[in-house]
Amino acid sequence: MSTSDVSAAVSYSQANQPRFLAELKSLLRIPSISTLPEHEGDVRHAAEVLAAELKRIGMEHVELIDVPTKGGLNHPLVYADWLHAEGKPTCLAYGHYDVQPPDPLDEWISPPFEPAERDGNIYARGAVDDKGQMYIHVKALESLLAADGKLPLNVRVILEGEEEVGGESIASFVREHPERLKADFALISDTEMFALGLPTLCVGLRGMIYTEIEARGAKTDLHSGIYGGAAPNPFIALAQIIAQLKDASGRILIPGFYDRVATPSAAELAAWEKLPFNEEEYRRTEVGSPVLTGESGYSVLERTWARPTLDVHGMPGGFIGAGAKTVIPAKAVAKVSMRLVPEMTAAESFERYKAYVESLAPSGITLDVRLIHSGEPLVIGTANAYVQAATEALHEVWHAETVFIRSGGSIPIVGDFERHLKIPSIMMGFGLPDDNLHAPNEKFHLANFYRGIESVIRFFETVGK
Amino acid sequence: MSTSDVSAAVSYSQANQPRFLAELKSLLRIPSISTLPEHEGDVRHAAEVLAAELKRIGMEHVELIDVPTKGGLNHPLVYADWLHAEGKPTCLAYGHYDVQPPDPLDEWISPPFEPAERDGNIYARGAVDDKGQMYIHVKALESLLAADGKLPLNVRVILEGEEEVGGESIASFVREHPERLKADFALISDTEMFALGLPTLCVGLRGMIYTEIEARGAKTDLHSGIYGGAAPNPFIALAQIIAQLKDASGRILIPGFYDRVATPSAAELAAWEKLPFNEEEYRRTEVGSPVLTGESGYSVLERTWARPTLDVHGMPGGFIGAGAKTVIPAKAVAKVSMRLVPEMTAAESFERYKAYVESLAPSGITLDVRLIHSGEPLVIGTANAYVQAATEALHEVWHAETVFIRSGGSIPIVGDFERHLKIPSIMMGFGLPDDNLHAPNEKFHLANFYRGIESVIRFFETVGK
Repeated sequence: MSTSDVSAAVSYSQANQPRFLAELKSLLRIPSISTLPEHEGDVRHAAEVLAAELKRIGMEHVELIDVPTKGGLNHPLVYADWLHAEGKPTCLAYGHYDVQPPDPLDEWISPPFEPAERDGNIYARGAVDDKGQMYIHVKALESLLAADGKLPLNVRVILEGEEEVGGESIASFVREHPERLKADFALISDTEMFALGLPTLCVGLRGMIYTEIEARGAKTDLHSGIYGGAAPNPFIALAQIIAQLKDASGRILIPGFYDRVATPSAAELAAWEKLPFNEEEYRRTEVGSPVLTGESGYSVLERTWARPTLDVHGMPGGFIGAGAKTVIPAKAVAKVSMRLVPEMTAAESFERYKAYVESLAPSGITLDVRLIHSGEPLVIGTANAYVQAATEALHEVWHAETVFIRSGGSIPIVGDFERHLKIPSIMMGFGLPDDNLHAPNEKFHLANFYRGIESVIRFFETVGK
Repeated sequence: MSTSDVSAAVSYSQANQPRFLAELKSLLRIPSISTLPEHEGDVRHAAEVLAAELKRIGMEHVELIDVPTKGGLNHPLVYADWLHAEGKPTCLAYGHYDVQPPDPLDEWISPPFEPAERDGNIYARGAVDDKGQMYIHVKALESLLAADGKLPLNVRVILEGEEEVGGESIASFVREHPERLKADFALISDTEMFALGLPTLCVGLRGMIYTEIEARGAKTDLHSGIYGGAAPNPFIALAQIIAQLKDASGRILIPGFYDRVATPSAAELAAWEKLPFNEEEYRRTEVGSPVLTGESGYSVLERTWARPTLDVHGMPGGFIGAGAKTVIPAKAVAKVSMRLVPEMTAAESFERYKAYVESLAPSGITLDVRLIHSGEPLVIGTANAYVQAATEALHEVWHAETVFIRSGGSIPIVGDFERHLKIPSIMMGFGLPDDNLHAPNEKFHLANFYRGIESVIRFFETVGK
C-alpha cells in the first residue's frame, strides 16, 4: 500500500470524528487532578475508563498496575499491548491521564471540567495536557485495528496518572520492570507544534527540580502590633532569600549553577533562527506582559529551551483572605522550581541550590529546603530511523517540512526510557503555543486532534512498512 | 463609703461569677469574624445579643446603629447610655465585639468557637481581644445597677464590630456625630497588663498602615517550563521589592520614613528600664524564635513601642496547595503593614511607602499599591484626673502600683476620640502577654476577667465620688 493514499484506517478515523470527540469529552469531565488527595478516586476512575476503552478496541493484556511508592500518592498505571506483528518494531506509546489543578477557577470562561467547544477548539483542563493528545494514540490504534483487523507494528501502551506530580510510579516501574516495557522506541504526544500547520518533533527537554523552602520564625503566629520589631518574619526572610536567587539581569546566582550548561550546536542555533518566531508578537499574544524578561544576551528560544531558569509558583502561609489580618506568621513556604538543561543533573543542581539557600538564612529564621520532584534534561539525536519515519508520516498529513524544536518543559519519563529501556522517544506533539497549558482556559485545537490521529496512524504504517 | 471597703457592686460581681462566665462563653460561640463576608450574619448576631444584654441590665436608649460607609462591610455599632448621675462626669465605654479569623485552624487545641476552660483560662477566638475585656464593662455596669440601683457616674456605651478591619463605621460616626458620644473620658479595655498581677495603664499606641502590593506580569497564568526565561514572575518581583524595604539590621529603607519619629522622654525610657522584663525569657516563652530581630541599637520595648516596624502577613496568588504546580502566576499580592509612632502620620507614611515601592518595580511588572486601612499613633498624658482615679482604683483591687506602658498595637479609635470628642482614653487592659492575640489558642485569664470587673466598678466609683 502506498503511504500517500488515504489508508483504510485514516478513512475510518475521519468517519468517526464525532464519536471520538464525544468520548474525549467524557474523559475530560473526570477531574483527575493528581496533586489533590481528594481527587484520588477521580484519577482512578479515569484509569478505569481508559483500560475499558483499550480492551474494547482490541488491545490485549489490559491491566491497571498499582506501584507501591514512597510518596503518599498511588495512582495506577494503565498497560495494554498488541504484539502480533512478527518481525516488526515495537512502539511504546506513552501518555498521562492526570491533569493540573484548575485554579484560579474564576478566570475560566467555561468550567474546567465541563468541556466546551468554541471557535474550533475544545476547552477543558487536560484538553491538550495530556488527555486529548494521549487519546490520539488510543484512537489511532482503534482505527488501525478496526479498519485492518491488525496493527502494522507491535505496540505497548503505558499511561500514567502522576505526570503532573513527578511520576514516581512509572519511574519506579520502568526501573524495576524494564522487560515489561521492552520496545524499540517510545511515542509521546505531550508537546506542541511550533505554529499552526507546522509539523513539529521535539528533540530536547529541560529537566527540573521542584522545591519548597519552609521558613520558621516564632513558635506561633504573633500579633504584628505587639511583636513587630522583635519577632522574625518568615515572609520577609523568604523575600530576602528569593531576591538573592537571581540578579536583575535574570542570571541565577547559585554558585556553580551554570558549570555544566551545554551550548546547543551552531547548526541547532541556526535552525532556531529560521523558525517563524517574532519575539514582539510572542510577547503581545502569548505572554502579554509589558516586556519579556530573562537572561540578557540570549534569544527567547535560547532562554526557554537551552538555558536554566528559576521561578516561584506560590508562597503558602500567613493570611491570604480578603482584608486585613495583622499576623506575623510562625512559618511561610516558597514553592520554587528550576528548569535544567543538558549537561546539568537534578541531584547536583538541588545540592548547590540547597546549600546556597541555607547560606542565606536570615537571623532568627530556621529553614527546611526540600526537593518535591525532579527530572533530568536531555537531547534526542535526529539521526535515528524513527525520527525519519515520523518526519515522512507528518509530511503526508500536513504537507509541510517537519521542524525540530526543544521544549522548555520537562518530561522526566523520556530520560527514564533512555536510561532503563535504552530507547529514543519520538515526541510528536499537536498542542499549539496558545493552548493555555497549566492555566485557565486550557484548550486543544480540534483540527489538531483529528489530524493528530491521522499522523499517528501514518507514523505506525510507515514504521511497519 | 470608703473605697477600700468591698462595695455592694463588687460583692454582687463576685457572687455572680459563674453566670458571668457562662454568658461570656455564649458570646464567644458566635464567630463574629468581621473580615470575612460570609460571617456578616454572625457579626450582627453578636451585636444583637449585646444590645439585648445592655437593655436587660438597665441601660437606656439601646440601639443598633448602621453607618453607611464606602467599604463593603457594614457591621452595626451598639449604643446604650445611662445619664442620670447629675453633676458627675460621663464615661464613654468602648469595646469591640468582632474578632480576627481563627486560621490556622489545625493549631488550635480546642476549636476557636467552642470556649474551653483549661488551667484557669478560657480559650476561644475573641476571649481577650476583645469580647472578654469588653464584657468586663458590661458586667461592671450590671453589678453597679443591680447592687445600687444606679451608676456613680454617667455612662455611654459604644461597641463596634469592625475593629479588626479598620473601624470605618465608628470612625465615621465619631466624626459626623460627636454630640451623640459627648463624654469626659473614654474607657477602653483592649490592651494588656505588663505582667500577671501588675496593674497597667497603656498611655501610648503605635499607628499603622495596612497595605497590599499587587504585582502583575503576564496576562494569564503560564507554564513555567514553556515560559520560564521569558515571562516575568510576580512573586520574584514582590520578593525583590520586599527585600528592599528593610536592611539586614531591621531598619526600614523607605526614604524619609524616620523623619518625624519622636524619641520618648528620658523619664519614660527610664521607667521602661525598671519594668520587670527579661529579653531572654520573652524570646523563649513568648516569641520562641532562635533570636529576636529588629532594629539594632534599641531595646525590645523601644522597638515594639516607640519605633516604626514593617511586616509581611501573607502573599496570596499562584499555587499554594500540596505538591507541585509549575505555574508562573499572572499576578501575586503581598500584604504589608507598617506600625507608626508619634509624630508620624498615616497619610504621609503611606505616600512615602507607595512612591518608594513603585520606584522598585522590576522590569515587566505592573504594580498596584493600595492602602487597606490606617490609624494614627498617639501618646496620652499621665497628668489627668482620670488616669489618677484609675491608678487609685487599680491599687485597691490589685494591691500594687500601676505601671504605665505603651502598646505596639494600634487602636485607631483612641485618636478619633482625641480629635473629634476632645477626650482622653483610659486604656485599662486585663490581657496577659501570653494570651495569643490574633493567633491560635487565644485565651483570657479567668482571674483577670473577674478582677477586671471589680477594677472597672472601683474606677467608676472613684470617678463618681
